Amino acid sequence: MNGAQRLIQTLLSGGVDLVIGNPGTSEMQFVSALDAVPRMRAVLGLFEGVVTGAADGYGRMADRPAATLLHLGPGLGNGLANLHNARRARTSIVNVVGDHATFHKQYDAPLNSDIASVAHTVSAWMKTSTSAAEIGADTAAAIAAARGAPGQIATLILPADVAWSEAGGEPALVDPIPPSPVAVSTIDAIAAVLRSGEPAALLLNGRALREPQLVLAGRIGKRASARVLCDTFPARLERGAGRFAVERLPYFGEMIQGALAGVRHLVLVGAKEPTAFFAFPGRPSVLVPETCRVHTLATESDDCVAALQALADALGATDAPELQSLHVPSAPTGGAVDPVSLGVALAATLPDGAIVVDEANTAGYAVPMSTAGCRPHDWLCLTGGSIGMGLPAATGAALACPGRRVVALEGDGSAMYTIQALWTQAREGLDVTSVILANRSYAILNLEMMRMGLGDAGPVAKQMLAIAPPVIDFVALGRSMGVPSCSVRTADDLAAQLRRSFATQGPSLIEVVL
Amino acid sequence: MNGAQRLIQTLLSGGVDLVIGNPGTSEMQFVSALDAVPRMRAVLGLFEGVVTGAADGYGRMADRPAATLLHLGPGLGNGLANLHNARRARTSIVNVVGDHATFHKQYDAPLNSDIASVAHTVSAWMKTSTSAAEIGADTAAAIAAARGAPGQIATLILPADVAWSEAGGEPALVDPIPPSPVAVSTIDAIAAVLRSGEPAALLLNGRALREPQLVLAGRIGKRASARVLCDTFPARLERGAGRFAVERLPYFGEMIQGALAGVRHLVLVGAKEPTAFFAFPGRPSVLVPETCRVHTLATESDDCVAALQALADALGATDAPELQSLHVPSAPTGGAVDPVSLGVALAATLPDGAIVVDEANTAGYAVPMSTAGCRPHDWLCLTGGSIGMGLPAATGAALACPGRRVVALEGDGSAMYTIQALWTQAREGLDVTSVILANRSYAILNLEMMRMGLGDAGPVAKQMLAIAPPVIDFVALGRSMGVPSCSVRTADDLAAQLRRSFATQGPSLIEVVL
Repeated sequence: MNGAQRLIQTLLSGGVDLVIGNPGTSEMQFVSALDAVPRMRAVLGLFEGVVTGAADGYGRMADRPAATLLHLGPGLGNGLANLHNARRARTSIVNVVGDHATFHKQYDAPLNSDIASVAHTVSAWMKTSTSAAEIGADTAAAIAAARGAPGQIATLILPADVAWSEAGGEPALVDPIPPSPVAVSTIDAIAAVLRSGEPAALLLNGRALREPQLVLAGRIGKRASARVLCDTFPARLERGAGRFAVERLPYFGEMIQGALAGVRHLVLVGAKEPTAFFAFPGRPSVLVPETCRVHTLATESDDCVAALQALADALGATDAPELQSLHVPSAPTGGAVDPVSLGVALAATLPDGAIVVDEANTAGYAVPMSTAGCRPHDWLCLTGGSIGMGLPAATGAALACPGRRVVALEGDGSAMYTIQALWTQAREGLDVTSVILANRSYAILNLEMMRMGLGDAGPVAKQMLAIAPPVIDFVALGRSMGVPSCSVRTADDLAAQLRRSFATQGPSLIEVVL
Repeated sequence: MNGAQRLIQTLLSGGVDLVIGNPGTSEMQFVSALDAVPRMRAVLGLFEGVVTGAADGYGRMADRPAATLLHLGPGLGNGLANLHNARRARTSIVNVVGDHATFHKQYDAPLNSDIASVAHTVSAWMKTSTSAAEIGADTAAAIAAARGAPGQIATLILPADVAWSEAGGEPALVDPIPPSPVAVSTIDAIAAVLRSGEPAALLLNGRALREPQLVLAGRIGKRASARVLCDTFPARLERGAGRFAVERLPYFGEMIQGALAGVRHLVLVGAKEPTAFFAFPGRPSVLVPETCRVHTLATESDDCVAALQALADALGATDAPELQSLHVPSAPTGGAVDPVSLGVALAATLPDGAIVVDEANTAGYAVPMSTAGCRPHDWLCLTGGSIGMGLPAATGAALACPGRRVVALEGDGSAMYTIQALWTQAREGLDVTSVILANRSYAILNLEMMRMGLGDAGPVAKQMLAIAPPVIDFVALGRSMGVPSCSVRTADDLAAQLRRSFATQGPSLIEVVL
């Protein structure tokens, strides 16, 4: 058994049974080993941004890592932006980067580069495996690191000769580091704060946004008359009818300030203190009111599940909170697609158990509101601000959850970053509906320019923010990669096409001309 | 004048009058300043790999840098692979990366990342500008670094508040570091070697591949009975009728060994000693015969122009070498497109002064041979091995050289990496003909797998190397982004479509089904 085979077998033993990649010559041993070691599913992405974004979407929904396979430093570079998003999402990924053979590095061949310096910026764990005898143990350590609390990226750099040399025996698997327990004194202190009667809010993120924890947070909120908030861009929020509905913080800094006005105690549960997404001249970076005290119940690495339970117990918060009622609107009967009718069309059609990947930015801002009362579903956001995550993450979510419909809400500008994801959706026959919101502009930037105090964009600036001319024909684009595609201009057509797509196996693309 | 305006004005003073970018919120000051400071041309790429690849193509042809504009660490990540190629090509680029405001970094907002660690892997010069008072001087230093010998990447990290604050006065420009002179003793020693009569070869790269230097090398070769070789993947080779034709080294290691067999003295002129592109089990990394001595006339940083002249003078090499004669074949009259007929079709139609960007990999291996006798043209190769360079570099070359036809020879796998470049070609009306060689496979990898001794790919491996199913419809894909597109299956159709495209202003795409 060579190093590549040992690596794959160790991945399988450690519960990693999907590799998404785009290999090159230095990864041929790994690719060949896929046939020697059965049971590993292998999926090709035509670009590494698709690969890493799919690994992110997969990890968020499967709660276990996929492995990637990237071609040296440039392949890692191509995948870096979606690894950045995955790092912010706290997604578990075993990130495998091929490299030149150990003895070949010294010649600085054309593809040689400093992989480690790039990888460390997104990786909680990183190692260059230098011997086939150790590749099994290195892989086991990588899996444990990726699965440790909170989820993180473990990068294993694999020189070609380590892959092709005779490997050592099967390694012992390593237990991932569990989430840290929260001290009783912390629970008690926060319970006292919440008993004070002063205006308080819980701010949730991470695992606290799963259904059981949401209910606990709702019980605590009810008992303490505290609001229950969630981060602006959660990695995965379980929501919809029958679940406890949190208030999601808005995007713009001044709106976050408004949402937090009057709060005297902000209790963080797997969340960070809210700060501005970007700095603006004369506007604050810190958005929590000066009169508000911030308390940490659980950091991202802490066991927020147990902490919420303990806090509920300490408060005697046993009363069930009000849960979201089912509210499915009628489909729109006509009219242009605008942010409101877009949301209504989706809400009227969204199937039970859907997974919505939301990279709709400006055009989709009202959709979360409209879909609050839909049947239970998951909502996945752009956590790291690097656009081009939506189509790949939808691809990965569909790989993780066969039988569930995935809806990617995509701005046209974001869609063009990693449009190659459509091809993988078609090849794998994934149940993804990509809704492309074609406003033909980086619309958010026109807003941000005004918020910068720069006034309206001048002619050159306008060109730099506009995605037309030429107008992109997303129907032709989708079909060119094997995805059935259509274009709609009215809300009733949109609802009809959504319904059709949800009833049809495999991917489809709906361009919405705004 | 704010920092962004000072930056742009300094770029203009330093001869940098094109910025290619994809900005975000942190770059809005820069974008707004484009209207405040006239004369700077601004071109939008829909993905940063297009941006950096276009800057590479532009720099290779313009012999001066373009500026990029990238959105924080993720934007840099997306552009990293083509910066890697540009680094290997020794292309001058002023690489501007926006960042959070200096006072905002501490909050680790979602888009925050370690930009410097990533940037230093491709940059010969890097600085985070920390004050608007210094932004002019920092920009001047960046331009000098980019233009220094040999061409290199200078990365200027621009925090948002440095861009929006009141700037200092106009800075003094800085002279770039010129190429280092080559010592007389080196010239004399190499002249002595070449006079010995032992079998010798010059190996050229960089500036030595421009017409006057090629003629000098040809004179030296004639005088000393030495072969004149060039690197496998030159950044820019001037070739065609009336020029001195070099022997390009092949790609596969064993073929390079064959090409160098019997050479006793290898004289490097702006080139590195040939080594294997990848390592293979049991094959050598070093390809120069053991009996061959390697001599360096000029490193990449040295003045190879003066060195070649001095060497020619020392040898009394005054006789003109034989120049390439004009040989334009007749267009094929029918038959399938294969590597040979592909080359003939291009050779029969290639216009005078064309720029060929060659990322054709396996399918195009015979094209350089077929086109050797065409009218004078430039040949641009994939220098860093990171695919996805061709369409962007063609875009940049066309921006640098209006009036010259650019031909991108693209494998289908490579084309899909940065396919968004087509949109910029359409928007800017660039004279680029993209020839997509659709063999529906990462064909090189099937070869490399066999060379690895792994035999034929198994079913899973085959899937990972195949770009179909689904078959990509490049005609629909090109048209979707505004590029007139067609598909051909025969060599006469190919020649006819090439001719039509060369006679038509603006971009076009020709899919060649192989």
